[in-house]
Amino acid sequence: MSEQEAPLVAVIMGSKSDWETMKHTRDTLEKHGVSHVCRVLSAHRTPQKTAEFVESSVEDGTKVFIAAAGGAAHLAGVVAAHTVLPVLGVPLQAWSLDGLDSLLATVQMPRGIPVGTLSIGKAGAINAALLAISILSIEEPELGKKLWEDRNAQAKAILAEKLE
Amino acid sequence: MSEQEAPLVAVIMGSKSDWETMKHTRDTLEKHGVSHVCRVLSAHRTPQKTAEFVESSVEDGTKVFIAAAGGAAHLAGVVAAHTVLPVLGVPLQAWSLDGLDSLLATVQMPRGIPVGTLSIGKAGAINAALLAISILSIEEPELGKKLWEDRNAQAKAILAEKLE
Amino acid sequence: MSEQEAPLVAVIMGSKSDWETMKHTRDTLEKHGVSHVCRVLSAHRTPQKTAEFVESSVEDGTKVFIAAAGGAAHLAGVVAAHTVLPVLGVPLQAWSLDGLDSLLATVQMPRGIPVGTLSIGKAGAINAALLAISILSIEEPELGKKLWEDRNAQAKAILAEKLE
Amino acid sequence: MSEQEAPLVAVIMGSKSDWETMKHTRDTLEKHGVSHVCRVLSAHRTPQKTAEFVESSVEDGTKVFIAAAGGAAHLAGVVAAHTVLPVLGVPLQAWSLDGLDSLLATVQMPRGIPVGTLSIGKAGAINAALLAISILSIEEPELGKKLWEDRNAQAKAILAEKLE
Amino acid sequence: MSEQEAPLVAVIMGSKSDWETMKHTRDTLEKHGVSHVCRVLSAHRTPQKTAEFVESSVEDGTKVFIAAAGGAAHLAGVVAAHTVLPVLGVPLQAWSLDGLDSLLATVQMPRGIPVGTLSIGKAGAINAALLAISILSIEEPELGKKLWEDRNAQAKAILAEKLE
Amino acid sequence: MSEQEAPLVAVIMGSKSDWETMKHTRDTLEKHGVSHVCRVLSAHRTPQKTAEFVESSVEDGTKVFIAAAGGAAHLAGVVAAHTVLPVLGVPLQAWSLDGLDSLLATVQMPRGIPVGTLSIGKAGAINAALLAISILSIEEPELGKKLWEDRNAQAKAILAEKLE
Amino acid sequence: MSEQEAPLVAVIMGSKSDWETMKHTRDTLEKHGVSHVCRVLSAHRTPQKTAEFVESSVEDGTKVFIAAAGGAAHLAGVVAAHTVLPVLGVPLQAWSLDGLDSLLATVQMPRGIPVGTLSIGKAGAINAALLAISILSIEEPELGKKLWEDRNAQAKAILAEKLE
Amino acid sequence: MSEQEAPLVAVIMGSKSDWETMKHTRDTLEKHGVSHVCRVLSAHRTPQKTAEFVESSVEDGTKVFIAAAGGAAHLAGVVAAHTVLPVLGVPLQAWSLDGLDSLLATVQMPRGIPVGTLSIGKAGAINAALLAISILSIEEPELGKKLWEDRNAQAKAILAEKLE
Repeated sequence: MSEQEAPLVAVIMGSKSDWETMKHTRDTLEKHGVSHVCRVLSAHRTPQKTAEFVESSVEDGTKVFIAAAGGAAHLAGVVAAHTVLPVLGVPLQAWSLDGLDSLLATVQMPRGIPVGTLSIGKAGAINAALLAISILSIEEPELGKKLWEDRNAQAKAILAEKLE
Repeated sequence: MSEQEAPLVAVIMGSKSDWETMKHTRDTLEKHGVSHVCRVLSAHRTPQKTAEFVESSVEDGTKVFIAAAGGAAHLAGVVAAHTVLPVLGVPLQAWSLDGLDSLLATVQMPRGIPVGTLSIGKAGAINAALLAISILSIEEPELGKKLWEDRNAQAKAILAEKLE
Repeated sequence: MSEQEAPLVAVIMGSKSDWETMKHTRDTLEKHGVSHVCRVLSAHRTPQKTAEFVESSVEDGTKVFIAAAGGAAHLAGVVAAHTVLPVLGVPLQAWSLDGLDSLLATVQMPRGIPVGTLSIGKAGAINAALLAISILSIEEPELGKKLWEDRNAQAKAILAEKLE
Repeated sequence: MSEQEAPLVAVIMGSKSDWETMKHTRDTLEKHGVSHVCRVLSAHRTPQKTAEFVESSVEDGTKVFIAAAGGAAHLAGVVAAHTVLPVLGVPLQAWSLDGLDSLLATVQMPRGIPVGTLSIGKAGAINAALLAISILSIEEPELGKKLWEDRNAQAKAILAEKLE
Repeated sequence: MSEQEAPLVAVIMGSKSDWETMKHTRDTLEKHGVSHVCRVLSAHRTPQKTAEFVESSVEDGTKVFIAAAGGAAHLAGVVAAHTVLPVLGVPLQAWSLDGLDSLLATVQMPRGIPVGTLSIGKAGAINAALLAISILSIEEPELGKKLWEDRNAQAKAILAEKLE
Repeated sequence: MSEQEAPLVAVIMGSKSDWETMKHTRDTLEKHGVSHVCRVLSAHRTPQKTAEFVESSVEDGTKVFIAAAGGAAHLAGVVAAHTVLPVLGVPLQAWSLDGLDSLLATVQMPRGIPVGTLSIGKAGAINAALLAISILSIEEPELGKKLWEDRNAQAKAILAEKLE
Repeated sequence: MSEQEAPLVAVIMGSKSDWETMKHTRDTLEKHGVSHVCRVLSAHRTPQKTAEFVESSVEDGTKVFIAAAGGAAHLAGVVAAHTVLPVLGVPLQAWSLDGLDSLLATVQMPRGIPVGTLSIGKAGAINAALLAISILSIEEPELGKKLWEDRNAQAKAILAEKLE
Repeated sequence: MSEQEAPLVAVIMGSKSDWETMKHTRDTLEKHGVSHVCRVLSAHRTPQKTAEFVESSVEDGTKVFIAAAGGAAHLAGVVAAHTVLPVLGVPLQAWSLDGLDSLLATVQMPRGIPVGTLSIGKAGAINAALLAISILSIEEPELGKKLWEDRNAQAKAILAEKLE
């Protein structure tokens, strides 16, 4: 893969069952025309492949990583251990504790290895894409314009809401 | 202020008492040679000034915002409401609940308005700076190199630790 | 709108999906004959409109604000930043954490900007209306009488309950 | 006591040890020239006296109640059971759990009996006074003006902060 | 009612909707042949009647009180304020927070006014009855014998369980 | 030991370090003239001795058990497994989590084996003694009178408090 | 039972209703060809039988214990009190609090009596079996090989996942 | 290093500041004459070295791993990703949230990769050593005998405690 063609955003999730939530990340990136790749990779079951994927993606020109996991959600941290590019974490509700475990395991990173953490679940899946686009918009002002258009559309929609 | 001279990172905190923690953000940005400005501005006490500061900073060329607050920590969200540039949130331990309130009030943003949230307190203050630098490194590879140098230095230091 | 005709209570919610809960606020205000207006306005998506709405409502004669939101529930705090009239907050259960995030983000306001916070969800929606009426009853004793009638009716109903 | 002379705000706390926090309520009310009375009364140890105090205060012309307690903080709820005037609750950090018990026991009132709850501890003590003043300002616009003056002073102070 | 005929255990709950859980208290008391009365009474909506009920029950010969409530569950504490007889509290899951609010509001009583708190929900409803019987068994050894018979039956049932 | 001379209340704690809190249980029992014994016994380190102590105490005439422990606080549950007499649990703050672990491990007993749980820490230590006395007062009305005297003294003390 | 034939792993659960979760422990042990026995035994309802079962199992050659319970989950701790062999705990979601009570009651053991605690619920049920096998694999390298085969199969499955 | 001489237990911690707690692991292993090695290695700062250390330790004959970390405590999970030998996790109190983050990030592992988690902090540090010894005692009965001697000494000490 040549650098130009490498996807700008790599979306990694710990299990295929996360896809129901994380396809909202994909949808949001697509809607904004941002190239991306989505992969199932596990911090614990495929540690070596995860490291290799991160390193080769960086080499190929990926700029932002999004990692989503639930429970003892180590994926974003493990990704961050292998790159100094921005890593965004999406805590997913797992089998108990309503997302609190995933949130704390994603956000409470020790000094030195940052993970920018978004909301638990679907809201976070969408927002991770938006933050990635926002990061890319620094270089590419067109993306920022589209983000504003979206915000304006959201605002218009809100102001048009009729209660009953 | 001309765009070239505008600080790349704007660091906002809700109260002067946050400075003890947030000066670690400043120190980290300085160490990496990233231009920045640090300001006390409140989501609730100076909402208009906060909005104006965000908007004028964007106009002047600021690329990343870091906002730190405690308790019902609305500052990062309010900053994010006024820009589509990346906003990073640092939840600060407040007068009770050991940072849980600040964390939830910073991270649980609704879909559409992302805040990349870091760890509670000092670790988050340092990591917000590192994530901001990491974002800027996409455009400026020198910053990325320095981030790796730091990581390598950290790794070396860890491997050199003697336990007694 | 002349001041006399302005609704006494303004009810704001962050999203139309909150209406299912917040219509209980409306119902309670209606039952007590208190003029009101209900609006969808977002702290993050329509910050300027929210501020304008609060300021023009105050000018028109609104006396109490009720703001309801979920997750990083900043709406009540943002309303309170634009008025010194009483602001009541209703934390709504959001997509995770069972309302704890909404509660902490609404209630833990820093000194200087109070938000009187009610219970999470429907109980809070009803109680916000009752507290608003209670506030207005200071000027208008008829409202207080009706509140007592309601309490007496509630008490009577309880005492009439048959367990099987 | 004639109605004219009755204190407008009654501040009740469950134990004398709460006074260290609640004197900030008193100070704030005094600073704004709002008449008030502060009393130690317990929901559990002096239930009858608490009820009598609430009822006689109402008769004498008190308009707002502030109740502060820690742990299984029932005081505000018990006060609210005896009046339809506004009752504001201040959850105080008790012997464990960092204020979470006090917060939940104060705020999670069942439908029908509202308590407007403020932040945990000192911030809440100050904010309860401010919300009480804000409620009284509906009738007495001078109080509202002073609240704005304070806000402006706060804003000015924030904008004047120098970080080192 | 003459003292001999007064029910030994009074079971109070804050709302009729609690009966679905609390009928397990009734069933357990019935199974053990312990006289009892079940009533809906509210700490907040019928405070005077609650106090009167407690006081007259004591006078009539009731020996143990069981009080169940959810949310800011003040009922057991309010009962305990009116008697020095044993008061047992059952925290009921309410509209949010999965019973944590009810538990903390019931159990964290200040020194001087004890409430013996049982498990959240149905397990607590049954156990409150068993603890009441256990208290009464001090005077009436027959009750204790029957409690042991039950335990033995439980043990037997457990030991007879077949897993597939 | 003959039955008459057996202590009415047995107070068990998991470690000698709990004594600093639990001597308040002892003091309260002493003040009310209730015979008691205090012992260090562990659910995990001396399970057999704990069972034997409970069984022999019952035989000797003990009527109420108080068990205090921290962390995975199993002591009260283990005591309750060996007697059908009333068992009261005091959750003690342990090495982390501010008493939440101790509370949940003490109170959330499965149906069939009740533990009447008091507040976390010192308040619970005092209240466990008071609830034990309250249980014994059913047979011995003098104890109930003294409990009321104490309550009245508490009430008087509260009503006599001067704030500054 | 002769030592050779004794099951290597004993799986104990507090109630038959736990079997729906714990049969995953059984399935995992079976799949790896590890001899085992599954029993319902209660820390509170059959304390003596639980102790006897642990002691006789040890004598017969059992090497690892797995104990699962919910709520005030004392079972693993009680098992650990009767053996110095490895005891693994599985916290099961009970009637409230989403497994937090079970987790804290299982894991927060005092120094001296360790319980190796796994995830809440089904994930923990499977992992307890895997950790038991892992412990046994120290003596029996074949088991370790099979664990690696499984890991490799898991990794392969993950790498083969197609997202739409 | 030949297999015979390899330490049986490898103790890894994320930072040198963890040593104050983790030296209790070392002390306990030493007291029981179990060979061990203690190392500072980070899941995030030295991921490759951590993996290499685990793999070479396994090759050299290490049988049990103990990993301790705080905050988003990924270390034990990362170790478990590189071995099928038993991995024990010790959650350490970090900069906020009193150990809850560390506990959840250590214990809530997804199915397939178990970590046997001990108590938060010092109790867990000691218990991890004891559980490791307990695991090794399966092969080496002398270790089990010494564990029982210790337990008996603990029991004796408890039974000898004098309360004043």
